[in-house]
Amino acid sequence: MTEAIAATRRSRITPEREAELYEAVLDLLREVGYDALTMDAVAARTRSSKATLYRQWGGKAELVAKAVRHSKPGRTGDVDTGSLRGDLHALTRRADDCEMEQSSALMRGLAMAVHGNPDLLKAFREHLVEPEMAEFRRVLQRAVDRGEVRADNPALGFVMHMMIGAFAARTMIDEQPPTQDFLLSYIDAVVLPAFGVTAS
Amino acid sequence: MTEAIAATRRSRITPEREAELYEAVLDLLREVGYDALTMDAVAARTRSSKATLYRQWGGKAELVAKAVRHSKPGRTGDVDTGSLRGDLHALTRRADDCEMEQSSALMRGLAMAVHGNPDLLKAFREHLVEPEMAEFRRVLQRAVDRGEVRADNPALGFVMHMMIGAFAARTMIDEQPPTQDFLLSYIDAVVLPAFGVTAS
Repeated sequence: MTEAIAATRRSRITPEREAELYEAVLDLLREVGYDALTMDAVAARTRSSKATLYRQWGGKAELVAKAVRHSKPGRTGDVDTGSLRGDLHALTRRADDCEMEQSSALMRGLAMAVHGNPDLLKAFREHLVEPEMAEFRRVLQRAVDRGEVRADNPALGFVMHMMIGAFAARTMIDEQPPTQDFLLSYIDAVVLPAFGVTAS
Repeated sequence: MTEAIAATRRSRITPEREAELYEAVLDLLREVGYDALTMDAVAARTRSSKATLYRQWGGKAELVAKAVRHSKPGRTGDVDTGSLRGDLHALTRRADDCEMEQSSALMRGLAMAVHGNPDLLKAFREHLVEPEMAEFRRVLQRAVDRGEVRADNPALGFVMHMMIGAFAARTMIDEQPPTQDFLLSYIDAVVLPAFGVTAS
């Protein structure tokens, strides 16, 4: 199905209604994950008919990918405090603990599904991973330009593994969601030393 | 159900057959994840009847938790090379790339399910997370005892977030499974600098 045809089909519902549906899908993804998410549950949660859902989106895979594309990227707007520590802390402080718990649940709900579903993987990467990566790259480039981090520091290639990794591992290891406090301590203890920057 | 009754019920099949069943369950977990794993699929894969599976294990949650408990811990045996870098590299080299891909797939297959399934979470932690953590703690304690790492280094509290995090994030960020080469580079670029140890 081409985007044009999809747009025509979706035009039967209002943008507000569409946004409401996508929010409900994201909530269900966080609660039960992709596999356990059924069109029945989406229909019940949104008080719509399954026939409407199938007519508008074609199926679960397409509906979920669209919902992920619709998900709000975290707050953006350039962070530039003048130091790598200041910038990394500012990026972390932009999402409150509740938003972090939601991101963490969404990541978990999609982790298995993105393998073997290229369209969903693309939506996941383009809307949830890449925007974050771009911000970290900008912040690090400025640290290199300032001479705070050496341009050949090997940790530059691992910043997302450090950050997303700690974020994902927190729940697995400590049975609690990532919080601002956890990530700020992790940045000071691990990320800054890896870049050769002292935390204090 | 008590362990004693469970043991009696399970005694109807041989230990070899039981091991074979658990292996098949772990394979299915890696392939499709917990939610999509059905008793029908286990029955088909292992050429057993669903009635037998339900009689022996009671249900999917119990069968999967037992299979995880049965999963082989990575090779053990103390690693002690005389340096933190040597020890971390040696621990990483114990699992080949194929075994790492399998662990990575199993972690993904269980990530969503362990939330909201306390018995499965317990099995996952006791058999897959804790043994690894214990080894890293031993290696780090020796590094502290040798004076290689300061006893108050704040990164000591984050070693598993660094290691399991990079392992989990690799697939998400780079669309490829973690490998020995990836983890060895990551240890040199991130983990050792965080501990104040130079990689070379």
